[in-house]
Formats: sequence, C-alpha cells, structure tokens
Amino acid sequence: MSSTMHLGLFVAANGHHAGGWRHPYADIKNPMDFGLFKEIAQKAERAKLDMLFIADKLAIDDNYGGSFDMTVTHRPSLSAEPMTLISALSAATERIGLAATASTTYHEPFHIARMFATMDHLSKGRVAWNAVTSTSDAEARNFGKPQHLDHSTRYERAEDFIQVVKSLWDSWEEDALLLDKERGVFADKYKVHYIHHESPWFNVRGPLNVNRSPQGHPVLIQAGSSGTFRELAARYAELIFTAQPNKESAQNFYADFKSRVEAHGRSRDDVKILPGTMLIVGDTEQEAREKERYLESLIHTNTGLAFMSGSMNYDLSKHPLDGPFPDIEQEIRGSRGRFQFVFRKAKEEGLTLAEVARWYITSRSHHVVTGTPQSIADRLEEWFKEGACDGFNLMAPYMPEGLDDILERVVPELQNRGLFRSDYSGTTLRDHFGLKQPGNKYSEAATQRI
Amino acid sequence: MSSTMHLGLFVAANGHHAGGWRHPYADIKNPMDFGLFKEIAQKAERAKLDMLFIADKLAIDDNYGGSFDMTVTHRPSLSAEPMTLISALSAATERIGLAATASTTYHEPFHIARMFATMDHLSKGRVAWNAVTSTSDAEARNFGKPQHLDHSTRYERAEDFIQVVKSLWDSWEEDALLLDKERGVFADKYKVHYIHHESPWFNVRGPLNVNRSPQGHPVLIQAGSSGTFRELAARYAELIFTAQPNKESAQNFYADFKSRVEAHGRSRDDVKILPGTMLIVGDTEQEAREKERYLESLIHTNTGLAFMSGSMNYDLSKHPLDGPFPDIEQEIRGSRGRFQFVFRKAKEEGLTLAEVARWYITSRSHHVVTGTPQSIADRLEEWFKEGACDGFNLMAPYMPEGLDDILERVVPELQNRGLFRSDYSGTTLRDHFGLKQPGNKYSEAATQRI
Repeated sequence: MSSTMHLGLFVAANGHHAGGWRHPYADIKNPMDFGLFKEIAQKAERAKLDMLFIADKLAIDDNYGGSFDMTVTHRPSLSAEPMTLISALSAATERIGLAATASTTYHEPFHIARMFATMDHLSKGRVAWNAVTSTSDAEARNFGKPQHLDHSTRYERAEDFIQVVKSLWDSWEEDALLLDKERGVFADKYKVHYIHHESPWFNVRGPLNVNRSPQGHPVLIQAGSSGTFRELAARYAELIFTAQPNKESAQNFYADFKSRVEAHGRSRDDVKILPGTMLIVGDTEQEAREKERYLESLIHTNTGLAFMSGSMNYDLSKHPLDGPFPDIEQEIRGSRGRFQFVFRKAKEEGLTLAEVARWYITSRSHHVVTGTPQSIADRLEEWFKEGACDGFNLMAPYMPEGLDDILERVVPELQNRGLFRSDYSGTTLRDHFGLKQPGNKYSEAATQRI
Repeated sequence: MSSTMHLGLFVAANGHHAGGWRHPYADIKNPMDFGLFKEIAQKAERAKLDMLFIADKLAIDDNYGGSFDMTVTHRPSLSAEPMTLISALSAATERIGLAATASTTYHEPFHIARMFATMDHLSKGRVAWNAVTSTSDAEARNFGKPQHLDHSTRYERAEDFIQVVKSLWDSWEEDALLLDKERGVFADKYKVHYIHHESPWFNVRGPLNVNRSPQGHPVLIQAGSSGTFRELAARYAELIFTAQPNKESAQNFYADFKSRVEAHGRSRDDVKILPGTMLIVGDTEQEAREKERYLESLIHTNTGLAFMSGSMNYDLSKHPLDGPFPDIEQEIRGSRGRFQFVFRKAKEEGLTLAEVARWYITSRSHHVVTGTPQSIADRLEEWFKEGACDGFNLMAPYMPEGLDDILERVVPELQNRGLFRSDYSGTTLRDHFGLKQPGNKYSEAATQRI
C-alpha cells in the first residue's frame, strides 16, 4: 500500500447533497455551462487531485408513479454527456486525470474504444473509462428495449464488451506508426491487427482506426458493490468507485475485493479502491452539524422517493409514505449491492418509507463526514490507515463554497500530514495512481514466436 | 443569396492531397496530436472562417484484395473520433463553428442527440452534426453486421434517425429550466416531453436529459450527391457538403438542390451548399502547376486503388491495372453519387484502372483549384457569383504550409474583394451562416392549443 492516499473529485454541477442546490450560498447554474465545469476542473488541478470523475445515467428517472414529474420538478435532473464533457475539459487542464462513465449496456464497443483512445491521445494520457451496466427501464426505453437487462445478463454483456474494447486498444502495437515520408510508408502493416472478436454479444473485426494511446489502455474504472460486480471488477478494473456507508463495511469490502484481485493472479496494488465521500466542513464541529441539518431541511421527500425508485428500478408509489419500509429486497431489479445496507438499516432502526427516502437521497448512500478540516482529516486518515480504502472520491455538498472548503481547507490539511501529494510527479493518470502500463497481447504473442 | 460567401475548413491532420503527407515541407505528425488540431483551429479562427469540418469513417479500408495492407502502409489511415475532437477544440476556440461527422447507420439516436446537444451548450452554440450513412463492409464488420445496408435501406434508417434526434432536441422547451431555489422547483414539468417515437427502426421514449441548447438544434449538415441523398437532404439539411468535379456539375447540383428545397416548402436560403475545394497556391501560375505535378508524383497507385475500393465497397484487385477502367457501375455497393462522374470521365478519356485510381485519390474527386492567390480568388468568385455554390469547404493539400497559403494569402484576397467577412458579426454557427433558429414542435403545439 502506498503511504499517500489518492483523491478523485466526483463532479456534480450543483453539488451532491440533495438539498445543496437550494442552499442560500449555492450559485445555481444550468448544469451544461462549460465555465462552471472548467472552474471546477482548474480548482481541482490546483489542489493536485488525481482525477475528476463524471457519473452518468441515460434517462431521467420516471419509475415513481410512472412519471418523471417529481424528478424534473425537484432535482437537477440534467446531465452533460460525460465523454464530450471530459474531452472539452482536457483542453482546459494540463495534469489532472479525467474519468467519464459510459454504459456497456447501450453503447457499441467500437465507438467506446475509439472515443476513449482518441481522448487519451488528445489529453496526453489522462483519461479513464468508468464501465457501468445500466439498471433502469427508463434507460432501456431510450434504446428500443421495453425493459432493461437482468443483473446477470447485463454483467455477461459487460464482460464481453470490455474484452472487445481491450482487444481494440491492442490492435495497433506501440511502434506501428512509421511516418516515413521518403519511402511513403505510413505504418507497419505487421503491427496492425484484426481482433476477430466473435461472441453471442459482439462480432467485431477491428482494427481500431486510432493508434495505441499514451497510456496503452485508458484506465478502467468500475463502480459497484454486489458480488457479481466484484467478480468482474476483480479481473479487469484498475480503480474501484464504491458507496460504503461506514468504515466497517468499507473495510470488509476492501479486504474481500483485494483478495479476489489476488485470486485472479493480479497484485493487490493493481487496483485502487475509492469510496465516495461527502464532506461537510465547518469552523467548529457545531457549525458543521448545523450546516448538515440545514441542508437536510432543504430536501423534498419526493426527490428521495423518485431517485430511490429510479435506482431500484421499482415503483415505490404503491407503498404508504408513513408505513414501515416495505419488504421488497427480492423485487427490485435495478442496482443491488448498494441497497443491502439500506434494507438492513431500515429494519434495524424501524424507519418509515419517507424516512428512508430522505436519508437515502441525502448523499445517495455515500459516506458523509461532517466536521472541521482537522477532524475530517482525522477520519479520512483513519479509513486510509485502517484498511478501508486507498483514497476517496470526494463529493461537495453544494457549489462552489462546499467545494472550496474541501480543496482549500481539507486537502491542505492532508498535505500537511504527508497523506497527500503536494505536486504531481508524473503526467498521466496512470502516473498519478501508480498503475502500471498494460501489455499488448499482439506484441507479446509476436515476442513469444521469436 | 448573400453577397458574401461562406468558408469551411475541411480538416485533415496531414493534408488532403494523397501525396501531401510526403511533401518535403510537410510537417508529418501523428494524426491524434491535439497541438496540431488546436493550431489548425486557431489559425482558421483568426482567418474568420465559418467552421471546421471533420469527416469520418468507422473502419480502415480493406476492400482491395480483402486486406488493409495497402491502406495502412501507404496512407494516413488513422482518424481521431470527431465528436470528442470537436469537443476538445471548442475549449481552445471562441467563435469558429465546429462540425463533426457521425453515422446514422451505426450509432444510436439518443447518444447522438445528447452528445451534440451537450457540445452545443459547452461551445455556446457552435456545433454542427454531419449526418452520414455508412457505406462499407469494413465498417459493418466493426458493428456485428456481415455486410453494410443497401443504399435505400440506409437512407430510410437515416431519415428515421434524424427525426428521433430532432424530437429529442425539442423535448425540453426553451424556457423549461426554472432554477427556483426558494420553492425548490428545478424545472417546469409541463415543458418537458416524452417523444414516444415508435417506428420499425427506432423506439425511443425520451425526454433527453440535456435541456435545449443555444442553437435550438445544432446545425444539421448532410454530405453527398446521389438522388436519394438529395431528397432526404432537401427536407432536413441546413448545410450541404458535396464533391463537384467542375463548375458545370456544381451549377447543375445547386439549381436542382435549391429547387428541391423549395418544393418541400423551405426557403432557398435555409440551406447553404459548400463544395469541397482543394487549393494549390503558388507565387506564379507556373510555380503552382509545378507544385501540383510534384505532389502528384508522390502518390502511390496503391493508395488510389485501396481508397477507391473502400469508397465503392468493391474489390478492384480482380481487374488488371493497365486494362481499361472496368464497367462496374451497377456492381458497386458503397458511395454512389460521387462515382457517376468518375465512370463518365474514365470512358470519355479512355483511362486505365491505374490512371483513374491515381486521378481519383489526388483529391478524392473534389475540385482542385491551382494558381496564384489572385487567380484562385477569381475562380472562387466565379463559382460563387454564377450559382455554383454558397461558399466552399476548403482543403489544404499538405500541412502546415498548404493551409497557411490558403488562410494567409487566398482568404485575405477574398476579404479585399468584399467576398468574405473581415470579422465575425455573431457568436453561433447559425449566426455565421445566417441560418434561422429552429422552432420547437412541442412549444408550437402548446401555442396552438391556447
């Protein structure tokens, strides 16, 4: 394990707290405004963060009551398309890594391989792909499907999708480009390869029409926590983004996941685990608590119901708000892993549906740390040193003040403690995370033949 | 018709002339290098051009002899993915328009609508989508299809695709965003719409999760020349990019196309026509001719055969190089319109296959104008004033000198003659081209109900 932690910034144009966009100090903007994203990116780069992380969903949630009304009315429901967003940000930054989410369920692997390889070139080796499976019927209906794929089927497709993408990234060997004007030889045809991928999911011949990119492969991120997820991610992922409600669950996840990684013949350090963590900062503990309570007072219960219905892919409107949280663990067809804790908590604490919805939407089941810069740094240090994570994907509750508190007060405290870098030592996202450059299966095959 | 012409720059990282990348003065680069594209974009913006135009193909040509060997060996066969490329360029420029090609054959309309709407926001209204149909089996095989779609089927799909995209761009009315922190109302749910598109090609429910963009709809470009193409483009396109080998054919195309536009109830000025035009500039006529001949001497016949086979989607390797050009007009299954002239020329001039291949690859059937800045301006003025076009999509033969000659010598000559703007008067791509803002079918339906 490294002696310093890794810090991503999970970007949300109007803040991550469900009440954040309504905070009096929040500067609320159209979440498509480039100036806003550019400012966030440049601030995060000044703080020497490893990367910006952009999540995604391919629809506006409309499970609750079969309508998008509550989502559209009470939440910032818009989201800039992540790949085009990070590509624009690559031109406005120099060093920070840039991670975009793209679905393995509704994209084509050739396009995804090509867009990320292109961006890896344009950014000089700073991009990562967060490969997710899509979980809601609202998304399915934007792509000609009446229902989304079930849990195990979408993971089967995801694995095949990732294999196609990785093969395409290998289809040009590192030294294939010759650019020999005199002889008129642009590239070495023996170092360019068809991939001939044939499977029930994808038949893709290749080669890619983008040559090998600076990182060899853009960094592969996966996000989740279920068992199926862990088995896939332990084989392929290089960064893990996960929602862990407390230190104990994070430690269990960390230990389990790293041992799965080793079981697949990889080194523990080949994968870094970053739980999402919202920080609410005050000058005193009391001020921070008051800020947290005030933010909670700004939440519409409706936003919780609409969002949780979307994530579960289950319509919660058929259950009474003030009744006990319904026993539906076997019925939800959307995200799985992140709800196990929710069901347990609801039962143990005897919460109503409305109470669970308001609690869940606050940070969307991510860990929240509230306190002074010092006490927050204590908690982050504790997680990091006690085997709960390799760093954090930080979440600002509201913008821009909530972000400035993190970057200008908490990060410097971590730097003073020697827990976080004071400057970048490398230029690529792999450099920042200490991830090794991947091999190329075609070059390796050629070497073995010699 | 406007009194000033419109100028796009058809971008090619290593120049458009088939011999251009081998020119001794050419600065040959990896065609993924962002610095290269940024320099091109900023130069074109200083020259006040309307837009940059990025073409695309979703494979490396391998029709000739069933192998990519000739393409990979003798041509710059790589191409940066256009959407991520223009998105990065939007952050490095302020005013110039940015057009990216994306296939209606192998993309999903939800993704395309979302990426262009996002980029229209990020760029503050400067993007255009060049909606093409894909024509080669090499492309089909990267997307799980053994063969590409036939001519009429791919145009049926293209039309349906465009309708879905336009509906999604209407799914948020212009004033739907409220951002009312006090009441906690983010958007007006009555101004957000499902599109409920159902057809044999696409079932897409919407709404888009990106609100209406600065241009209302990003500008729609279509490229081609066949009859099927003209019928589709006359209904939807706002800019036309076309390959016209001489003034007479350009005049015929222009007259025919504008009358089709009017037949569909649109104004002639709702569509601007820009033929691709390569400029080879010299200090004297003789120097320019010598430069042209020298560039031609750098062409490998193989590159012509490989590229023409790719565009035709037909393997020319079964015909002898020195024999007469084969009579295969009914057999080619790729691009159609642009080859009609080629077949006629080959027959009239009695050319061999090798001769046609070398001629065709030179500028890929686009018009070439060779001369001094003054004589080139004469020719462009003549085309513009005699009803052959509304402007040009300019092509530099090699980089960077060939481009500098165009931007620093030919464009100023056009400006001196009052034929081209000396500065931008607006901020969006629609402003530059004098294209009107599109309506919104949902807003209009609501107005009619009142």
